[in-house]
Amino acid sequence: MAKKIVVIGGSAAGPKAASKARRLDQNAEITMIQKGQFLSMASCGYPYYVGGVFDKQSQMVKEPASFQNIKNINALVKTEVVTINRKDKVVLAKNMVTEEETQYPYDKLMIATGSVPVIPPIPGVDLDGVTTLQSVEDAKFLKERVNSKNVQHAVVVGGGLIGIETTEALQLAGIKVTVVERLPQILTFMDWEMAKLVENHIKEKGSEVLTNTAAQEIVGEEGKVKAVKLDTGEELPCELVVLSVGVKPNSKLAASAGLEIGEIGGVRVNKYLQTSDPNIYAAGDCIEPLNMINGEYTWLPMGDAANLQARVAAQNMVKDHPDVQYKGVVMTAICQAFDFTVANTGFSENYAKRKGYPNLLTTMQVGPDKPGFMGADYITIKMVADAKTGKFLGMQAVGQGDVAKRIAIGAMALHAGMHIEDLVSLDLPYAPPYSPAIDNFITAAHVLENKFLGRMDGISATAVMEKINKKDDLLLLDVRNMTEYEETRLGLGEMLIPLPTLRKSLDNLPQEKNKEIIVYCKVSLRGYEAATFLMSQGYKNIKVLEGGMMAWPFAKIR
Amino acid sequence: MAKKIVVIGGSAAGPKAASKARRLDQNAEITMIQKGQFLSMASCGYPYYVGGVFDKQSQMVKEPASFQNIKNINALVKTEVVTINRKDKVVLAKNMVTEEETQYPYDKLMIATGSVPVIPPIPGVDLDGVTTLQSVEDAKFLKERVNSKNVQHAVVVGGGLIGIETTEALQLAGIKVTVVERLPQILTFMDWEMAKLVENHIKEKGSEVLTNTAAQEIVGEEGKVKAVKLDTGEELPCELVVLSVGVKPNSKLAASAGLEIGEIGGVRVNKYLQTSDPNIYAAGDCIEPLNMINGEYTWLPMGDAANLQARVAAQNMVKDHPDVQYKGVVMTAICQAFDFTVANTGFSENYAKRKGYPNLLTTMQVGPDKPGFMGADYITIKMVADAKTGKFLGMQAVGQGDVAKRIAIGAMALHAGMHIEDLVSLDLPYAPPYSPAIDNFITAAHVLENKFLGRMDGISATAVMEKINKKDDLLLLDVRNMTEYEETRLGLGEMLIPLPTLRKSLDNLPQEKNKEIIVYCKVSLRGYEAATFLMSQGYKNIKVLEGGMMAWPFAKIR
Repeated sequence: MAKKIVVIGGSAAGPKAASKARRLDQNAEITMIQKGQFLSMASCGYPYYVGGVFDKQSQMVKEPASFQNIKNINALVKTEVVTINRKDKVVLAKNMVTEEETQYPYDKLMIATGSVPVIPPIPGVDLDGVTTLQSVEDAKFLKERVNSKNVQHAVVVGGGLIGIETTEALQLAGIKVTVVERLPQILTFMDWEMAKLVENHIKEKGSEVLTNTAAQEIVGEEGKVKAVKLDTGEELPCELVVLSVGVKPNSKLAASAGLEIGEIGGVRVNKYLQTSDPNIYAAGDCIEPLNMINGEYTWLPMGDAANLQARVAAQNMVKDHPDVQYKGVVMTAICQAFDFTVANTGFSENYAKRKGYPNLLTTMQVGPDKPGFMGADYITIKMVADAKTGKFLGMQAVGQGDVAKRIAIGAMALHAGMHIEDLVSLDLPYAPPYSPAIDNFITAAHVLENKFLGRMDGISATAVMEKINKKDDLLLLDVRNMTEYEETRLGLGEMLIPLPTLRKSLDNLPQEKNKEIIVYCKVSLRGYEAATFLMSQGYKNIKVLEGGMMAWPFAKIR
Repeated sequence: MAKKIVVIGGSAAGPKAASKARRLDQNAEITMIQKGQFLSMASCGYPYYVGGVFDKQSQMVKEPASFQNIKNINALVKTEVVTINRKDKVVLAKNMVTEEETQYPYDKLMIATGSVPVIPPIPGVDLDGVTTLQSVEDAKFLKERVNSKNVQHAVVVGGGLIGIETTEALQLAGIKVTVVERLPQILTFMDWEMAKLVENHIKEKGSEVLTNTAAQEIVGEEGKVKAVKLDTGEELPCELVVLSVGVKPNSKLAASAGLEIGEIGGVRVNKYLQTSDPNIYAAGDCIEPLNMINGEYTWLPMGDAANLQARVAAQNMVKDHPDVQYKGVVMTAICQAFDFTVANTGFSENYAKRKGYPNLLTTMQVGPDKPGFMGADYITIKMVADAKTGKFLGMQAVGQGDVAKRIAIGAMALHAGMHIEDLVSLDLPYAPPYSPAIDNFITAAHVLENKFLGRMDGISATAVMEKINKKDDLLLLDVRNMTEYEETRLGLGEMLIPLPTLRKSLDNLPQEKNKEIIVYCKVSLRGYEAATFLMSQGYKNIKVLEGGMMAWPFAKIR
């Protein structure tokens, strides 16, 4: 008898699971039930639709008929699943237009209900001109407002991935945008000093970013948004507010069916992506996948993970006994922020600390993404490893250069559970149009190895600034050349000794060998060269400023 | 007492080893001896210098003084090492200007003599206007000839990496180029059908490519090149000939010192990069590194590998007992060919066959490198795996899309020794500016897995063409839509049934269920969809044309 497969959800994981199940079982009766009116929405594309990168709504969605004709999948839209009757293996769904209720019996059920936006508990969120960017309807609304030319100022509440992508989209459409972020930094999957580099770039591009600032109220007039009131008392006049404070797993239906829910609020699944009911699978934003790095349940609401999970679940659903495993995620995320690419894979330093890793080794490295003569762009990479075992735990990268490739390399290293020693001699694709002779990823790994083996001691810009604020007795030693120094410098009382003259300039340095000296250059490669020399001269307290001038997140003198 | 380190060679591995040794041992006496007049040449950049991407020679080389001042390295140029006296641990070197000979005693010696171009044994290679592209002098010569505007036609003898890069450089300078390749294909590190896609692209860009054709003689007039005579008898008139038939390890000095040489002709080294004399190390193009995939010695003359090997050797040279290991290479290569990127990592199908792998699983997959609405470019990926164990053995990729990232991912998979099951659910960086929701690499792995698990049977374009030439009884079934068909088609008597109508068109198909049917579309995703349906209808001999229309290397009707 034909197997009955019912899929709840029609965005990413749902259509993928239904399609894959069809290819594997041409006889199954497959029904896909979607609450909204659209199917297979490319939701990651919404900001680019709003920003005018493309204009056809049809490029973001698929028609129900195409599922029927090509894949013989019964695709229902505007239909909400009301209950899951696990005992009788029947789903009750209501057509939201006719209000008719229909029962759909299943042998295997798949829950792919995705995520829902978090709405901040402040007055005014219902005013006209306030929206999230979570649905095709949201995207159309925003695009209409942008095209209407009636919006001069917009406030984006929340500086996460969607918030930053939306900021760029609105700004490119000629709207003056202010991002309001309650926390001390935007993009909290990054460490502070990396996020700060992005924040600086966004500001240079003309948008405003307010961190440590909460939106207290959305102020309206005649039902329309007029301003956002901050906890500082200040009001930001605006005609549009985008709420992007975050999303959470949409596990309500699963919970009401008595399925196990995890601590983060997502549906709990096993390695086969089965829920606590073996006939019910789940995939996508509504589940808590395993984090392959520490084996804990986590949450990663990403379209690519949803598709891959759905493919695994579908392979198991068409069988009597599941045997295809989903191993988990390594927490990879990427976004475009104007000319920058911003990305992470694995643990940030902050995240690792929160997860209880006691001894962390970190490093920040800046460099061009190809030889200078090919017209390079810069990339800043921060790597995190276990200081005891050398296990690679994660990396972040930002910059105008090809960040995505380096993050992909890092993600592979995490999938493979690699250690520092595995990363220092990788055979990556090198030719001048594509990378420096030693790829940025490998150079960062070299610095990490140098620290791991005690060859150098690095210090972050943040730590230097703390020392300066505490008025610690230290010397900042800039080893760039005079031209570079005249263009831009820290302006914190530093000493300039260009590297080529350092060997002959020992007399100019403090003779006290325990003096704390922080050495740097543009990216700190020359800084490292200088540090090794100074240490050989008996200096005991030499530190290299990680990432040099280019990764310095604070103000500089120009 | 200060350790004496002598480095022979000043291109890539030499300067890297000397510099790294200096950072690790500030007291060592370090001497670097270079035969030519230049140091630290960015030899991979020569084609871009010739092509006018950059013009300053200084961007390709470093000055001896910079090694002295910054790194305290005694860098000698125009100095040739005549003999290595291993017994007394002394190197004898001759200043090529003064002819003066000097002895340099060493505690540790490093051989980094690189590679030398192979000159084909044909008449006329000494004529004016004939050159290789292996040195700064060659690059300068070519650039001068290009800029002189006296060259209208050039012949590139040999279609390897350098040959193809040079072709592009010359063509961009307005010279009409013909590539002459003795073998049936250019770029022999790729499989035929992948190289053919590149060849087609080069021809579309306006250069001529002649495969299966050997240069028999370079014809001159008054000492100047006039034409290249082919084995077909044809003469190609030209004012410039670039010989790029290959390079070989420059291991002469090592051999004359009695050091062990491998079968490929490179210096044999152990895992610490020690030669058969433990006080002598070697790195770069002159050695045979280990191939991590099969554990055999191999040869990979690449600047990135040279640098990384030098870094390992230097760490061992400064110690009494070496302990840093170089694990080997995974055979990664990449080059630009006009708008295409062409790359390989690991085994091609051909190479694996030559290495005696009996059961290979291969697949070819074509797809856009990001969502269509973001303005995608296409990539064709061929993957090779062990059909029995599922071990990933290699991949090639060509196209206008971001090939480098996918090859980097593949290289990491090879470093980690991954199997197909490790590749199907990777957590790679996804956002619309960077990749499709399921990355091209993962999609290719999915197809590989589908074949591994017997879900589909693929057939290469080459195999289809062989069947057609043998007049096999088969049906070619195109499942694209009418518009696509009218734009371009195979023109081999194929039947068109658009996928959405296939389920209702069974009557139009042959009723004989053992009939061989080869299904395809633009890239063969719809082809796979159709194949699974036809198999469910009892057809027993359904094959999917790998890569579909886009990977078809033969002529098409337009």
